[in-house]
Amino acid sequence: MSDLIEKLNWRYATKRMNGTAVPQEKLDTILEAIKLSPSSVGLQPYTILVIEDKETKEKIHTIANNQPQILESSALLVFAAWEKITANDITEYMNLIATTRGISVESLAGFQSSIQGGILSRSEDVNFQWAARQAYIALGHALVAAATENVDATPMEGFNAEQLDELLGLREKGLRSVVIVTLGYRDEEKDPLVRAKKVRRPHDELFIRI
Amino acid sequence: MSDLIEKLNWRYATKRMNGTAVPQEKLDTILEAIKLSPSSVGLQPYTILVIEDKETKEKIHTIANNQPQILESSALLVFAAWEKITANDITEYMNLIATTRGISVESLAGFQSSIQGGILSRSEDVNFQWAARQAYIALGHALVAAATENVDATPMEGFNAEQLDELLGLREKGLRSVVIVTLGYRDEEKDPLVRAKKVRRPHDELFIRI
Repeated sequence: MSDLIEKLNWRYATKRMNGTAVPQEKLDTILEAIKLSPSSVGLQPYTILVIEDKETKEKIHTIANNQPQILESSALLVFAAWEKITANDITEYMNLIATTRGISVESLAGFQSSIQGGILSRSEDVNFQWAARQAYIALGHALVAAATENVDATPMEGFNAEQLDELLGLREKGLRSVVIVTLGYRDEEKDPLVRAKKVRRPHDELFIRI
Repeated sequence: MSDLIEKLNWRYATKRMNGTAVPQEKLDTILEAIKLSPSSVGLQPYTILVIEDKETKEKIHTIANNQPQILESSALLVFAAWEKITANDITEYMNLIATTRGISVESLAGFQSSIQGGILSRSEDVNFQWAARQAYIALGHALVAAATENVDATPMEGFNAEQLDELLGLREKGLRSVVIVTLGYRDEEKDPLVRAKKVRRPHDELFIRI
């Protein structure tokens, strides 16, 4: 069994954390994995809030069904997808590619026109759903990276997104929260699921081979 | 820098592959990472098609913008989300938990009622979008696992989903294709992007610290 599979078997959706701080180096690795996550056409249409402030966590706790890990975590990640995608976002992305690769923006005209045609012809809601999916690839990267660093992570959809957007001022930034993750360490005494066997659909139901 | 970050820097959206077969053991590791991917309430509302059949790949090639990696890959994964979620799906999931953990289904009544109340009160479209997001977490796991196995992987949304569903008989199975991934090995001579610098949004734009 590969090391990665061993780590993924170790991880689980931790229900109680013990308040221990995640070292900065490990947090940085998790954020770097998010940054390196691929996205459709490479746009990365999302922003991630990294919340360590105690008072902010307390406010989030009350709008996320009082889930205790929020208070017991070392850091909380809020994945927020872009509410809409504009021609300006695409132009900025072209500038980023050109600067990074030392090429002219003009040489990207074909690529720019192709992604503009695809993205700008769709409704705002379709683009928001698409942006949210890209954020979930990054979520997958964050969860694997946390496991490889022996950091516990609990993804959560059970929160009031409108209230969280209001609290964090996300709408003014053109963002909407889609999923949150607590990072920290499992409380082996308090977590009833700490030794529960992992439940997964059988291989021959989950996969179809052709 | 952690080994994981090194692997994630190595990976890129490979545009041309060289036809080399991915060893079964590596493919199995990638599928196991998908299987271990977490999902909201643990439901895993998706099925993954693992396609190695040459004729099927040729047909997919024509409905996926003739992207050459499809023919040049060793295997193609099609992530298909559940089109809708029924009370029966939730009952089967409860049975799976009970069997796996050696507990009674009755002891899960509170959990069952809570997720039924959440999921079954939503529209089919909301649930399909939700299922698709869960599939994208699994996609994230597949991409990281491929990178750790030094297998190239190209996620693709550029295909005609309706035609692919028709080709693979997905609708009859209650499934809709959402994203595909080619697995194989980069063709260093033919791929124009093989040495292109990775483009990512700057850290202080992608992340907001609170």
